[in-house]
Amino acid sequence: MLFRMTDAGSHDSKRSAGIVGASGYTGAELMRLLTAHPAFDIKVATGDSQAGQRIADLYPSLALAVGDRTFDPFSPDLVDGLDVVFCGLPHGVSMGVVPKIQERVGAVIDLGSDFRLLDASLYPEWYGEEHTCPELLRSAAYGLPELFRDDIRAATLVAATGCNAATSILALAPLLAAGVVEPDGLIVNLVTGVSGAGRPPKEHTTFCTVDENVTAYGLLTHRHTPEIEQALNQATGAPASVLFTPHLAPLNRGILATCYGRPSDRGRALSTEDALEILAGHYRSEPFVVVDERSPSTKAVLGSNAVHLTARVDPRTGLIMVIAALDNLMKGASGMAVQCANIVCGLDETVGLPTVGVYP
Amino acid sequence: MLFRMTDAGSHDSKRSAGIVGASGYTGAELMRLLTAHPAFDIKVATGDSQAGQRIADLYPSLALAVGDRTFDPFSPDLVDGLDVVFCGLPHGVSMGVVPKIQERVGAVIDLGSDFRLLDASLYPEWYGEEHTCPELLRSAAYGLPELFRDDIRAATLVAATGCNAATSILALAPLLAAGVVEPDGLIVNLVTGVSGAGRPPKEHTTFCTVDENVTAYGLLTHRHTPEIEQALNQATGAPASVLFTPHLAPLNRGILATCYGRPSDRGRALSTEDALEILAGHYRSEPFVVVDERSPSTKAVLGSNAVHLTARVDPRTGLIMVIAALDNLMKGASGMAVQCANIVCGLDETVGLPTVGVYP
Amino acid sequence: MLFRMTDAGSHDSKRSAGIVGASGYTGAELMRLLTAHPAFDIKVATGDSQAGQRIADLYPSLALAVGDRTFDPFSPDLVDGLDVVFCGLPHGVSMGVVPKIQERVGAVIDLGSDFRLLDASLYPEWYGEEHTCPELLRSAAYGLPELFRDDIRAATLVAATGCNAATSILALAPLLAAGVVEPDGLIVNLVTGVSGAGRPPKEHTTFCTVDENVTAYGLLTHRHTPEIEQALNQATGAPASVLFTPHLAPLNRGILATCYGRPSDRGRALSTEDALEILAGHYRSEPFVVVDERSPSTKAVLGSNAVHLTARVDPRTGLIMVIAALDNLMKGASGMAVQCANIVCGLDETVGLPTVGVYP
Amino acid sequence: MLFRMTDAGSHDSKRSAGIVGASGYTGAELMRLLTAHPAFDIKVATGDSQAGQRIADLYPSLALAVGDRTFDPFSPDLVDGLDVVFCGLPHGVSMGVVPKIQERVGAVIDLGSDFRLLDASLYPEWYGEEHTCPELLRSAAYGLPELFRDDIRAATLVAATGCNAATSILALAPLLAAGVVEPDGLIVNLVTGVSGAGRPPKEHTTFCTVDENVTAYGLLTHRHTPEIEQALNQATGAPASVLFTPHLAPLNRGILATCYGRPSDRGRALSTEDALEILAGHYRSEPFVVVDERSPSTKAVLGSNAVHLTARVDPRTGLIMVIAALDNLMKGASGMAVQCANIVCGLDETVGLPTVGVYP
Repeated sequence: MLFRMTDAGSHDSKRSAGIVGASGYTGAELMRLLTAHPAFDIKVATGDSQAGQRIADLYPSLALAVGDRTFDPFSPDLVDGLDVVFCGLPHGVSMGVVPKIQERVGAVIDLGSDFRLLDASLYPEWYGEEHTCPELLRSAAYGLPELFRDDIRAATLVAATGCNAATSILALAPLLAAGVVEPDGLIVNLVTGVSGAGRPPKEHTTFCTVDENVTAYGLLTHRHTPEIEQALNQATGAPASVLFTPHLAPLNRGILATCYGRPSDRGRALSTEDALEILAGHYRSEPFVVVDERSPSTKAVLGSNAVHLTARVDPRTGLIMVIAALDNLMKGASGMAVQCANIVCGLDETVGLPTVGVYP
Repeated sequence: MLFRMTDAGSHDSKRSAGIVGASGYTGAELMRLLTAHPAFDIKVATGDSQAGQRIADLYPSLALAVGDRTFDPFSPDLVDGLDVVFCGLPHGVSMGVVPKIQERVGAVIDLGSDFRLLDASLYPEWYGEEHTCPELLRSAAYGLPELFRDDIRAATLVAATGCNAATSILALAPLLAAGVVEPDGLIVNLVTGVSGAGRPPKEHTTFCTVDENVTAYGLLTHRHTPEIEQALNQATGAPASVLFTPHLAPLNRGILATCYGRPSDRGRALSTEDALEILAGHYRSEPFVVVDERSPSTKAVLGSNAVHLTARVDPRTGLIMVIAALDNLMKGASGMAVQCANIVCGLDETVGLPTVGVYP
Repeated sequence: MLFRMTDAGSHDSKRSAGIVGASGYTGAELMRLLTAHPAFDIKVATGDSQAGQRIADLYPSLALAVGDRTFDPFSPDLVDGLDVVFCGLPHGVSMGVVPKIQERVGAVIDLGSDFRLLDASLYPEWYGEEHTCPELLRSAAYGLPELFRDDIRAATLVAATGCNAATSILALAPLLAAGVVEPDGLIVNLVTGVSGAGRPPKEHTTFCTVDENVTAYGLLTHRHTPEIEQALNQATGAPASVLFTPHLAPLNRGILATCYGRPSDRGRALSTEDALEILAGHYRSEPFVVVDERSPSTKAVLGSNAVHLTARVDPRTGLIMVIAALDNLMKGASGMAVQCANIVCGLDETVGLPTVGVYP
Repeated sequence: MLFRMTDAGSHDSKRSAGIVGASGYTGAELMRLLTAHPAFDIKVATGDSQAGQRIADLYPSLALAVGDRTFDPFSPDLVDGLDVVFCGLPHGVSMGVVPKIQERVGAVIDLGSDFRLLDASLYPEWYGEEHTCPELLRSAAYGLPELFRDDIRAATLVAATGCNAATSILALAPLLAAGVVEPDGLIVNLVTGVSGAGRPPKEHTTFCTVDENVTAYGLLTHRHTPEIEQALNQATGAPASVLFTPHLAPLNRGILATCYGRPSDRGRALSTEDALEILAGHYRSEPFVVVDERSPSTKAVLGSNAVHLTARVDPRTGLIMVIAALDNLMKGASGMAVQCANIVCGLDETVGLPTVGVYP
C-alpha cells in the first residue's frame, strides 16, 4: 500500500485504483477522496509533467496522506490489473490512453470530454479535432448517476459529465421530463469558479485577472453545449436546444446555474409549488440531491458531493426558472467519478463521499 | 471651504454642494468624487447616525481630503442656498427630506428609490409602503443621462437610476428602440458585488457569507423590476416585461447584466454584427459608453464612470443577448449622480468623472 | 438518533454527544465533523438565539446530514447523561453554563476562553470581567493535545485552546523547550481569516470592509496574549513574554503565524537545518503535524486538522523564525475539540478528523 | 497627441512623456495616471511582447482613454526628445535600455530595480547577475520623495523605490532618524497583494493558488532587503540590518508592513504617544502621508498615492512597532514615479495624483 489511509474502516478486500493524470485539480481531488475512502487503495498516481516530484510539494494539502510519495510516469503496464482507473487528462489525451488500458483494467472512469458525445461528428465541430476512436463512444456510459445509473452499473468505460453540463442537466431534466417546459430555446446562465479551468497558469486565470471580476466567456460556443443537449434529449426524450453562457467569478470552486425556459402547453398553469414538487419527486431517493425553496448557493456545497436545487415560476412573464448549485471538483468531477466507481464496483454509492459542505 | 481640494483646476466660481446621508457608501463615493471635482465645493456632509464622528475614522480612504472634518447632523437650514444637494438616504427616507429642502436649494439629486417610479401605486406593491408625496413623482427626472438627458437638464429634482436598473436599461434600450427584440419576456440575469447592499452589517453581507459564494436573491420580486420596465417603456415606447434575477458574488463593486430576448419579426435575420452596430450607433456620442466585441467585465470599469457593452445573436436558438458592465457605486450611483449634477449645473458632463478603471 | 450519519462505519456502541451553542461557526463545524464521525451521535444541538429554526436554513451545507432538524433551546436537563458536551458559546457565557452541566455529563469540551487561564486575576485584566467560578480553572485541562495530552486524558473539563494561541504555541514551544530561543520579547505576527470573529455580523467583518484589505487589530491588547505566555511557560518551563499582533486578511479560514525570537546562548550557532530538526523531533509521532522546509500556507490545511510548520535562522540578523499554519475552525477550534473528545473517550485520537485539506 | 485626455485642465505647454514597457501592471497604472494628468502627454507607449495589439484589448479599463491605440515596439529613436521616459521593464532589462536613451530625453524614471543599489557588488549577490553599467549607479537618485526629494529634483535618472522597500523605509526611517530604535535586527513582516508579481501568469499567482491563502515567501532572501538597508542607512545614518519577510495574501493591490525594533538607550522610555509624534513630526508637510492612531489598512489607500502610518510601544516587551500601508502600484510604483516626474519637471508634486482611495 503506497498511501496511508485515514478513516479507512474495516473493508476486508479493498479495490485497487489508479489515477492517470493525478497532478491536475481533479486528480488532486481524487487523491483527497480516495486516500480517505474505505474501499479503494490508490496503487498508481501518474503525472507525466510532474513525474518524480513529491506529490506533497505540488499539493501540500495531501502531505499527511501521501508522505514522500512521488508522481509516477505513465505507462500502460503500470495500471495492469487494477480494478478501477480514473483518467484526469486534458481534452484529446484520454482518447489516446483509454484504448491502451481498457482491456487491462476492471473499469475506466474518464473525467475528460473525450467519451461524452455519442455523435463523433460533434468533436470536430465543437472541439476542433477528429475523434481517434469513435467506435468506443457508444460503449461509454454517461456518468451522471441520477439520470444514467443503470448504464453506469453495466459499463466498463464511464465518461464523467462535464461540470457545467452536470449542473445544467440536473436542473433542467425533471421539468423537461414532466413535459412542462418547451425544450427549445432553453437558457442556461451559469456562474463558475476558477478551478474548472485547471491548474496550469493562464492569462485569464491569474488572481489579478479574476479577483473583483465577473465576466462571461465562451459566448455562443462553449463546448459543454452539445453535451447538455444530448443528455437532456437522452434522459427526457425532448429535443432540447440550449443557449449556454458561462461566467467566471472570483471563486475557487462552485457552479451556480440559473436556467430559464418557456412553459409548454402542459406547463401553462404551472406554479412555483408545482415546479418544486416535480423536482423533489424526480430526485426523491437521490442521496446527494437537495430540493428546497431556499435559493441554492455555491458555498453550501463546497467540498461536498451535494447538489442543491430550487425552482420558480414567474406569474408576470410566464417564464420558468430552475437554479442548481454544486462543487465543480466534487459533484461536477471527482466526487461524481468516485460515485460512478462505487456503482461500477458494486459498493454503496455514497461510500467515501462527503455530504456536508465546508462552511464557511 | 470645508474640504481641501485636489487637482481643483482653475474654475472661477465653484458651485456649492451638500451631501445628505454622506456616511453610506454612495455618500463616501460622492465625497471621493467631489473633493477632487474642479467645480464643486462640499459645504455640508450630514450623517445622522454618525454625526460628530470624524469622517476619516469611518472612511480612512478620505483622510487626506477631509482632514478632521466630522459628519454634520442634518437640518433643512444647513443646506439652505446650496446649488446642489445629493441625497444618499435609505429607501423611504428621501421622501420625507426632499419636500423640506427642495425649495431652498438649486437642485436635488436623489440617489434613492423614492422618486424613480412615476406611478405611485407601484410603491406599496414593490416597496410595501405608500408614497407620502406622490405629487412630486411627475416632476422628477429619471437620472440616466444616456436616455433622459433633456429631462435632467430641465429638472430641479433628479432621481438617479438604481444600479441594477441602470445596467439593465442601458443594455436593453437600443435593441428595443430598434424594434428587433420582443419587449415581453425579457430576461435580465445579473451578477452584482456587495457594496450595493450598503454599509450597515447584515447577515447576508458578512465576509464569511459572501466569500467563495454565488447565490441568486430577490427571486421574482426584486424592486428594480418596475423601474426597468418603466424606463424601457419610456425610452423606447415598447411595453417591456422583464424577469429580473440578481445574483450576489464576492466582489466589492461591479454589476454584470446578461440580458436575453427573443427576436421580433423585424429582428428575425439579425446577426451579431447588426446587434453590435445598433448598440454602437445608439451610444455613438456618449462619453462614458464603450461598445465592443469584447466580453465586458466588471473589473474593467471599477472606479470609473464607464459602462461596457457587447451583444450576440445565437444562430442556434435565435436568442439575442446583450451584456453590460458598470461600477454600481460609480455609473450605477454616485458617478451617475455627479454626471447629472454636471448637466443640471450647465457644466461639461464629464467633469470630475474618471473614465479609466482602477486595474487590476 | 436525530441525525443521519454518513460514513459511520461499524462502531458497536456510539458515544452520545451534545453541542451547546451549535449555531455559531464552531458549532456548525462540530456538526460537520460529528455527523460523519463513526463513534459519536449528536443527541442535542442547542442554539438559543436560533431555537426552533431549521439547522439547514442557517447552514444549508448541513442539509443532507440534518434534514429538518431544528436548533433546541438550551436547558441543563437536555444534556443529562450525555457522554460528551461541546460548548461553542461566546466569552463569558461558558462560565455560567459549565458549572450547571459538568456533574450531569461525562465530559465537557469548552471551545471558549472561560477556562483557559489558570490565574483568575487575568480575566479582569484581559477580558474586562471577573471570573465567576475561579475554582474550576485548576481542574480544566488545556486542550492542545500535542503539548498537554496526558492532562486531557485525565480531565472531565477541557478548555480548547484559542485558535491564534494554538498556532503560536505550536510554533514556539519546540525551540523554547530546546532552550535555543530567548523566552522574552518573542514576536508573533499572525494573519487570520474572518471566521474567527464568529457568525454575527459586525462592522469589521462585512465583505466590503474585509475584501481587498489587510489590517492589524487588537494592537498590544489581544486577549490570546496571556494564554500563549501561560501555555509556553507550562509546556517549556520558559518564562515567555510575547508581543502578539494579529492581522485580518480576506480569507474565510486559516491562520498563519510568523514568529520571531532572538537566539539564546545555546542557540547562538543554530542553523536552519538544526531548527527544522528540533521541530521535526518534537512532533515526530504527532498525527496532525507536518514539519517541512516548504513555507506553510493556510490553503494547504483548509478543512483539515493538520498544522504545517517550518523554521529559518537568519545568518544576517541572527534572528530565528518559525512559521505555522492551521485552519482556525479545525485544528484551531472544532477539530481540536473533537481530537480532545476522542482522547477523553479513549478512542483513537484521529478518528473522524480529515487530514487532507480541501484544495484548491 | 495620441491619447485623449480627461480632466486635462488648462496647462499651456504639456510635457511629453513616454512609457517603455507599458504592457505590465506598472505601465497600465502609468497610463491611468498620465491620461488624466493635466501636464503630461503620453507620446509613446511601448510593449514589445504586445507590440501591435490594441492597448484596450489588454486593458479594457483604458478603453475610453486610449481608443484604438496599439502598443509600439521599442526603439531608442522613438523616445528621442521626450521630456520624461518611464521604464516599466523587468529586472535586468532596464540596465540595457537606460544607457541607450538617457542622453536623448529630459529624464528617465526607472520603475525597476536596476538602478536602486549604489554598490554594484550587491547585484550578483541578491539578483544573481553582474550589473552591466555600474557607472550609472551613483548618478541615479533613489525615488522616494519623502526622504530624497532634493536628490530627485537634481537628477536625470531616478530609480523608483521597490514597493515593499518603500513601505518599510517610510515606516522605519523616522524612529531610526530620531535614534530611539536600535538599527540592527529590525524585523519587517509584510503582507502584499498579488499585482506586485506582475502580469505574466505564474504558478504562484493563479487565482486558485492565491485565493483563500496566506503564505510567506522569499524567506531570508528577498531582493528588497539590501535596498531597505541602504536607504535607511542613507536617510538616517544608522547602519540598519533587517530581516524582511513578505507574505502573499489574496489582494489585488496593497502592502501592509508591520515593523518591529528594539528600543535604543535613548528610546528606553518611549511611549506610544512619543512614537506617533516622531512620525507625525517627520512627515508634517508631506502631502501624501497620514499619521494617525488608527491601524492602517491596505484598503484605505487603494488606488491613491497615500501612505498611512501608525506606531505602538509595547510596555510588556519593550518592543516598538510601526505599521505602514500603501498601494503597491501607486505610492509603491507608478504613483511614486509620477510624483518623481512632477518634481523633476518642476511641477507641483501632487498634480495628477489621487489622494483619496477607492473604497470599498
